[in-house]
Order: sequence, then structure tokens, then C-alpha cells
Amino acid sequence: MDSKNKIASTLHEKAGISPPEILSTNVVAQIQQFRKKQPTSKELVEGILDKNITALSRAITLVESTNTNHLEKANEVINACLPHANKSVRIGITGVPGVGKSTFIEAFGKYLTGLGKKVAVLAVDPSSTISHGSILGDKTRMEELVKDKNAYIRPSASGETLGGVARKTRETITLCEAAGFDTIIIETVGVGQSETAVHSMVDFFLLLKISGAGDELQGIKRGIMEMADAIVINKADGDNIRKANLAKTEFNRALHLFPAKKSGWIPTTATCSAITHDGIPEVWETISKFLEQTKGNLYFFEKRKEQNQYWMLETINEQLKLHFFNHPEIQKLLDENKKAVQNDEISPFAAAQILLKTYFKK
Amino acid sequence: MDSKNKIASTLHEKAGISPPEILSTNVVAQIQQFRKKQPTSKELVEGILDKNITALSRAITLVESTNTNHLEKANEVINACLPHANKSVRIGITGVPGVGKSTFIEAFGKYLTGLGKKVAVLAVDPSSTISHGSILGDKTRMEELVKDKNAYIRPSASGETLGGVARKTRETITLCEAAGFDTIIIETVGVGQSETAVHSMVDFFLLLKISGAGDELQGIKRGIMEMADAIVINKADGDNIRKANLAKTEFNRALHLFPAKKSGWIPTTATCSAITHDGIPEVWETISKFLEQTKGNLYFFEKRKEQNQYWMLETINEQLKLHFFNHPEIQKLLDENKKAVQNDEISPFAAAQILLKTYFKK
Repeated sequence: MDSKNKIASTLHEKAGISPPEILSTNVVAQIQQFRKKQPTSKELVEGILDKNITALSRAITLVESTNTNHLEKANEVINACLPHANKSVRIGITGVPGVGKSTFIEAFGKYLTGLGKKVAVLAVDPSSTISHGSILGDKTRMEELVKDKNAYIRPSASGETLGGVARKTRETITLCEAAGFDTIIIETVGVGQSETAVHSMVDFFLLLKISGAGDELQGIKRGIMEMADAIVINKADGDNIRKANLAKTEFNRALHLFPAKKSGWIPTTATCSAITHDGIPEVWETISKFLEQTKGNLYFFEKRKEQNQYWMLETINEQLKLHFFNHPEIQKLLDENKKAVQNDEISPFAAAQILLKTYFKK
Repeated sequence: MDSKNKIASTLHEKAGISPPEILSTNVVAQIQQFRKKQPTSKELVEGILDKNITALSRAITLVESTNTNHLEKANEVINACLPHANKSVRIGITGVPGVGKSTFIEAFGKYLTGLGKKVAVLAVDPSSTISHGSILGDKTRMEELVKDKNAYIRPSASGETLGGVARKTRETITLCEAAGFDTIIIETVGVGQSETAVHSMVDFFLLLKISGAGDELQGIKRGIMEMADAIVINKADGDNIRKANLAKTEFNRALHLFPAKKSGWIPTTATCSAITHDGIPEVWETISKFLEQTKGNLYFFEKRKEQNQYWMLETINEQLKLHFFNHPEIQKLLDENKKAVQNDEISPFAAAQILLKTYFKK
């Protein structure tokens, strides 16, 4: 089971899991209306390009469907949306539970809609299958943003694998962009491998932290600090301001020890409060500077092309592994070979060869 | 070509590339003697267990062979050596060109043989195919160690892929250990992906640095600092001592911002001089402490098991990709799909599906 989970596919299907609930109640009403007929992919695309939120939600549900029959239709819709997508900034936000991601996104999102932007908030949270949508699941945490007609909030797709959840979110970005959303925020929890997936689908990656007695050092997953284009210390309010500033200085010093980024961007550190809204406009200012710089040196566009290719190759890779490890004869042989390898009874390469020979001889 | 390189296999064969030269001249003479007859795998194993360096070198040459007929025999030898291997410490050493890796290993290796240890020095350097063994290729840089009968130096295997080079080095470790070498040093250059490969085959990972006006910040590849169990600032001699100490302090501060290691080990920083030998004994002291701690908490043994499994799965993965991308129909379709994906004409997932359908329908 362990290895099966590890190699499971981006296209993996799981029966019996219902797609996540739609949060906005008026959207639910619209969908009920829309559901009276089964829209064609052409109708869905027209709806999306017409900025119809019901059509958008319907298309996302199609993308998230675990029914293989829906796959082809989903691909038709996405491919038709592609020429109209891409005109956005995609922002990844990560941070361990407790840093106040939801309140930050609420404050930041409201600030952006206030500037006239259309903001879609998505999430990658593979754990949501178990916790029933731990991220973005709790409407009350984004009360204001949920009611904002220029914001669209969609909880994490479910699925038993990160690859599956990531694929669905990646395609949902395309649909949201085609529907006119120009600012895409993708939230993820600061645990597991989901940051790497989110980092591979965004332009700007923001690490949210809090200060505290020494705890600015805790809970950063390896490698995350290096991925960050900005580290923002949240909850810099009241008694916390001094500690937040100290943490900021500390992180700033550490960031300078990392090698220069390919983007030419020098990661920044800042403090903010999602409660008092101090520092929230500055976060957007930083992102704007990043966009100006990386569009100027063309890194922005190159990175998006690279990301596209990454997802193609990654999907192929995952499918190849899934096919291999689901092969009945491999399933029979895998455990004994794994054990033999772990106990140094056979070299890892010799064991791999035995399995590969079995697989390819068919 | 680009993608073919990317997915190339650990078992990939390349005709026309000769195995690396043996450095020690008396070993060459012994091999010439030995070569009069073709030893069986049983004879090779007996020779290795008998601590016969000629047999060891011969077996390594077999492991490094690009002739597919040699693969089975090589596997026989390695599997027979496995029960006698594993009783060693494996130390990875990385650092960008110019930090003085060779002089450090010469000084460190001599110190270890002085303690009665048997030291094997290997390398992972995929670029050596082009540069004809850039690492360890220059005998004169390890003059003393080459002559030491308790040291065995083997330059990097050649091969056009990192996976191939890494596999050969990984298996050479087993052969060296079975031949009684208790300290395995694996050198790699601080560029490319080779550090990850080396990190996955050693117990302790040492990052070698030098100080200098700001250049302690240069040339560290992303993620390497986080892999390090120790950062050692080399060339801490003469006018350099003060700067080396400053760099040490700086790195020490930065290391504390990283999350705790699974091993429970807190990475250390130190200075040393491969010229004056100051700090060289302390490097071994640090490694000894690491071993005591990680053998005490059993992390040492768990990690080795994990590494074995990693190499098995990694080999399978690479072979699956190689088989896929060498498929004639995939080769025909790949470029156009890649371009379409890059230019947002088709979603990465839809393109992957097209290719996968073609591959699996055969």
C-alpha cells in the first residue's frame, strides 16, 4: 500500500468521493438552475468566457470529477480556455497552521478587490480528503471575501494523491483566468510535499510566518525558505511588533546567504498584520515590483513555459510509475525485493533489474 | 536530445567510452598479471574478501563496464559482497571548484590512515566524460594518499548520465567495503545534481567552503546548505584566518534558521587548513560524534535502509522513463506536444494523455 500511494497518479481516480462543496450560497442556487440541463463543453466554455460563475464552478467540478468519462470533456473545456487564460499573476501562499493564512488572505484579497482586481482563491491540500477540506473549508474565516463579487473562493480538490489534487488545481487556474480572474491566490499548508507542487504553478511564492519566543525557527520545512520570493511575518500587532521585527531581521540575514535566484529577484522580508491591515498594501507593492522586474528580464514568461513542460513530464512520470506498480506480477514481487534490498541481501540495482525484466517481458 | 538526456537511465550503456584509468601504478602491474586469465565472479569475490586490490579494481571495472554482457556477472559479484559490506562510514564531500577539495581529502585521508583506518576515495562527477576525469584525475594533487597502502583512490566512473555514474559509484562502495575499507569518502563538485545523488549514498555530508570578500555567499547551490551535516571553511591559514572565522560565524547563524534534522544532529561549522592541517583532526571528531549520536538513536541504520530502497525505486523510475522516451512513436510526437504545451495551445495534462495513450496502446 505504501508504495502504491507514493506512485499514485495525477490522473488517479477514486470512486465515492464527492467533489468539494461550493461555498457561496448564491452560486449554489445558480448551479441548481444550470444543472437542469447537461451543458456541452462548448456551452461551458462560452459561459466561462462570459464570466459566468456558475459555468466556471460547473467546469471546475468537471475537472475535479473522478469519473473517467468526464476526462475528455474536461480536456476539451480546458484546451478551449487556454488561449484566454494566462493573463494573471499567480501567487502561492504557504505557512504552517497557526500563522493566520486565512485571515491574511481575507485581508489581502479584500485589499486587491479594492484595487479593482478580480481575485480567485484556490488551495492545494491533499489532506482535505480526510479532514474534509481543512483549508478554505471554514467559510467563517473569510467572511468578507466570500461575499465579495470580485472574489471567487474554491476549496482544495479532493483526491488521495498530491499529484491528483495538484493537477486539478493547476487546471482550475486556467479556468479561473479564462473567466477573467487576474489574481490567482493558491494556498497550501506548510507540511508535506504540497509546497513544491504549488511552487511549480505560481509566479510568486510567499512564505507566511509568525514570530515568537524562538518559534520563528520552527516548522519551516526544508527547502521552503529557499523557494520563497518573500517572507512575511504575520501577526505584527500589539505586543508582537517588536518580536516580529526581530524575526524579520533574522530572516533577512539568512536569505542573503542563499545563492542568487534565476529570476534575478532578491527575496524580501516584511511584517504585516491581517488584523490591523498594516503592511498588507506593501505585500502587493512587493509583488508588483517582482512582476515588473521579471517581466522586464523575461524570466516571468520563461518560467511559465518551463512550468507547463514540468507538468507534462511530471504527469507522464507519475502515470508510468502507476502502471508499473499496479502490474499484478510486480505487486507480487515488490515486497520481497524491497525487504531484500533493505536488508542488504541484494543490491538495489539488481532488485530493480529483476522487477523491470518482469514488467517488460509481458 | 534535451529530454533524452534528462530521462536517461542508471543502467544506460554507452559504447566507446573506456573505463577510467587506474591511478596507482603498482595496481596497474597487478592487474596486468591478473588479466592473463578471465577471473570468474567467484574468484573476484574471493579476491575482494581477501583484500586483494587487483581483484577489487577488476570488479569495479566490471561494474563500470558499458558492455551489457558484463551486467549479470557484476550483479553476482556485488550480491556476494553485500553480506560483507556495510561496516563503514560513508562521507560525502562537496564544494565548488577552488575550495581545495583535493588538498583537503589528501590531508584528511592521511590523517585517517594515520589513525589506522582504511580509506577509499571515490567520486561522482558526470562531467568527467567530457573533461576526462576532472575530479581525482590529477594524481599530483593527492600525491601522498596515492602512495598510501591503506588508501584506495578511484576516479569517477564515466557515463553520459548522472544516474549511470551514481549507480556505478554506489556499487563501488559495496565492493570497497567488502575489501575491508572502513572509511569511504565520496567527492563531488558543487554544481549540477550530483550532490543529491551523493547525499543519497552517504551517512555524513560535508560542505567545504572558503571565505573571501563576500564570496562565502557565492556558488552554494540551492538546497546544499540544508543537506550539510557540517560546513567546513577551508584555507583558514595566514591572512585568511580572520575572514574564515567570520564566515564560520555567519554560516553558523544561518544553519540555526533551518528546521531540525531528522537525525537529531545539529549541523556544525568549523574552519580548517589543508596546508597547515589545523582543524583536520576536529573534522574527524565531529564525524565521530555524529556517528555516536545517530547510531545511538538508530537513525544511522534506518537511513541506510531508506537509501537502499531509494536507489531501487530511482533505478526503476529512470528505466521506465528511458523506455518511454525511446519509444519511436513517442519520439515522433514529443516535440510537437512540448511546443504546444509551452505555447499554451494544449494543457500539460492533455498532452501527457496523448503521449501515454500512444505508448500504452502498443
